[in-house]
Amino acid sequence: MSEQSTPSPTPAAEAASDPAATLPQEISSALKRDPAGLVAAIVQQHDTNEVLMLGWMDDEALRRTMTTGRVTFYSRSRQEYWRKGDTSGHVQFVKSVALDCDGDALLVRVDQVGAACHTGTRTCFDGRELTVVAGNRD
Amino acid sequence: MSEQSTPSPTPAAEAASDPAATLPQEISSALKRDPAGLVAAIVQQHDTNEVLMLGWMDDEALRRTMTTGRVTFYSRSRQEYWRKGDTSGHVQFVKSVALDCDGDALLVRVDQVGAACHTGTRTCFDGRELTVVAGNRD
Repeated sequence: MSEQSTPSPTPAAEAASDPAATLPQEISSALKRDPAGLVAAIVQQHDTNEVLMLGWMDDEALRRTMTTGRVTFYSRSRQEYWRKGDTSGHVQFVKSVALDCDGDALLVRVDQVGAACHTGTRTCFDGRELTVVAGNRD
Repeated sequence: MSEQSTPSPTPAAEAASDPAATLPQEISSALKRDPAGLVAAIVQQHDTNEVLMLGWMDDEALRRTMTTGRVTFYSRSRQEYWRKGDTSGHVQFVKSVALDCDGDALLVRVDQVGAACHTGTRTCFDGRELTVVAGNRD
């Protein structure tokens, strides 16, 4: 289940390589996965509430995220697990994880080291605003 | 393209029922849609930065959201457009929309009237935290 985990000297990361580990049944049964077996994971900076990025998790990526203190995604394009920061150094330390009311989205609150975006911006949305007609009460 | 739009007396909403309207080409070509033609839309309260919910948009839902001042989703379960608040009164007024670096996620900043969640909680994540091992720098 975790053939693609990266060897690591830290004890916390060892939880990722336990082949017998699975998500608790009550969480697994609450997930509403897309046809690829994934749920959306919104990543938010825990103290500023900035939305940093959106990633994707399958059951195993969520289990690693919940048990190792570090955020692990499942990369749809590379079809492999991806522990944020292993190559860039831009680690995400997990502060909390919540599953939404209908089970298809996770809110992962983190302490983000450096830039969350691979382009170098703090968030994946910075400088990427579309032109819109704003709405107002009244 | 907008057969399912709800008739509305407000001028802003009329943009939703223009059958000739489409997304600007530069936006349409930047979207990385899932096999169902959808991108994830993170909805955030503009002044507090709370993450309220996650919805899904196709090109037409995004166009309506960008041009009418109100957030419109595409419901995966009901397979229809859904303008937030039309039945609940819990309207989302659009403040800004940004498309992320790889085109598969939108950040929609809004002014949320009342509860964002159909269960009555302010956000779809309130009270739904999972038990995790937190991580820390050092």
